[in-house]
Formats: sequence, structure tokens, C-alpha cells
Amino acid sequence: MQTHELETYLHSYIPLTKAMQVSVLSIEPNTLILQAPLAPNINPHHTVFGGSVGTMATLAAWCLLHTRLQAEGVANHLVVRHSEMDYDKPIAGRFSAIASLEQPELWAEQMKTLQQRGKVKITVISVLSYAEQITGRFRGQFVALKA
Amino acid sequence: MQTHELETYLHSYIPLTKAMQVSVLSIEPNTLILQAPLAPNINPHHTVFGGSVGTMATLAAWCLLHTRLQAEGVANHLVVRHSEMDYDKPIAGRFSAIASLEQPELWAEQMKTLQQRGKVKITVISVLSYAEQITGRFRGQFVALKA
Repeated sequence: MQTHELETYLHSYIPLTKAMQVSVLSIEPNTLILQAPLAPNINPHHTVFGGSVGTMATLAAWCLLHTRLQAEGVANHLVVRHSEMDYDKPIAGRFSAIASLEQPELWAEQMKTLQQRGKVKITVISVLSYAEQITGRFRGQFVALKA
Repeated sequence: MQTHELETYLHSYIPLTKAMQVSVLSIEPNTLILQAPLAPNINPHHTVFGGSVGTMATLAAWCLLHTRLQAEGVANHLVVRHSEMDYDKPIAGRFSAIASLEQPELWAEQMKTLQQRGKVKITVISVLSYAEQITGRFRGQFVALKA
């Protein structure tokens, strides 16, 4: 999947991503990067609203799994089940969320489970980055259901 | 603080809350309730986007502390530091986030700490509610700094 294709999909089917002006920077098998500007995501302290930070982290993780499952040719329904987020530093401008699998070595086994049982749990990590610094960390458990 | 005052504040200073059409249903000393409709918060599965769910939970918790600190007459800077969220059930329509203090019995002591040290940690719980059911649970640690 191309970055502009995913961006169009997000803006069409998740209107909040359009309001946040989320863009898709890169899609690699092992990492996916989203970016957003400050203005539509600002809070009263002139930094990025915690809700936008958490949303970007969750969305990057969801997008990584969504594109990987698409590449496997598995039609799927993908939902977040549990998440934890550390907000380490304020973000005062354009920021990124970089998602990767927590245990990429389990992927082949997880795809087998999804095919056999129609359902699998997968954990994804996202880090938030602003001005060359890590400003937050997210860990989310997702459930993929075979459509 | 009145519900319409808080709503105007949110929509003015956190533009994402306007995009999400967040409304303030009630402000009591021990609970604060926010509500939002499905349409601006929809996902590709026609239920509420996980990012909107997490944002509503975080925002209700932030608003509860913000209004309580205002009632104490403490000018403050209030940020979320850590959060955990369980997404239990999909939400297919207008939904609420109901925030309360995790340990209301610590409030007096926490206000003393804020006055003396200029800083205090406070934990807030939010539950998500849709169609008379609890659909998600949030626990967030906030840091209040005396302005």
C-alpha cells in the first residue's frame, strides 16, 4: 500500500484523522510513520493535546497492522483492546508517531493462528517523536479477526 | 463552573473537541460527564474510532481535575503523564465519558502538597458508557503544577 492510498483511506473513513491533518510519512514492513501539525491538535498550553498524542500513537499502530494484514492478503477487522501510554515531554510543533511490532519474530505464528482460529492478539509499540526527541511511548494490544 | 462555560472553553482552546462535537453534560464535585455523537468519531467499522474513545476518557478526566482546581482557586497547569485504557465493547452511537477521582479521600492532602511543593500527582478514572453499558475503562495519572 502506498502512503497516499492509506492517507486517503484514513481521511475518508476516519473523519477525525482529517480534522487532525494526519499524513502518512512512510510504510515499511517493520515501521509505519504518521505525522501531524500542531495547529489542529493544540491545547490551552500551546502544546499538543494529550488526546491527539494518544490518538496518533494508537492510529500508527493500527495502520501498521492494517497494512501488514493487507500485504498478507487477509481481509480483516482490527480493533484495539488495551493500551498504555507514557507522556514524557510536551510537544510544541509538528510531531510523528512511529509504530513497530513488539515481537516481530512471532508474526508467522500469529498469521497461522489467525488462519486457524479466525482471531489473534498482536502487540504494537508506538513512539512519539518531536524535534529529534522521544516525547511519548505507547503499547497497545490489538485483536485481528478474519473477516 | 457551568457546563456551557466549560464547553465554550474546550471548543475555543482545544479545536479537536469541536471537531469531535464534545458536549459537557454535567459537572459535579465528584463526577464530570462528557458526551459525543458517532458521526464525527466514526471508524471504518461504523463504530467509534479508538482514538476518539481514548480522547474522550482522557478529556473527561482532565476536565474533572481542571474544574476542581478552579473551584479551589488554584491557577494551574495540568498535564496527563501516564494512562491505561481497556476497550471492552464497540460503541455504535452517542456515548459518554464519566470521570471521577480514584481516591477522593486524598484530595485535601493533595491540595496541601500542591500549595507546599507547587506540584502534585492525582489519579483519575473514566468509564465509557454507551446504550446503558460500560464499554471501556480508563485510568490516568495527571500532574498539576501551580501556575
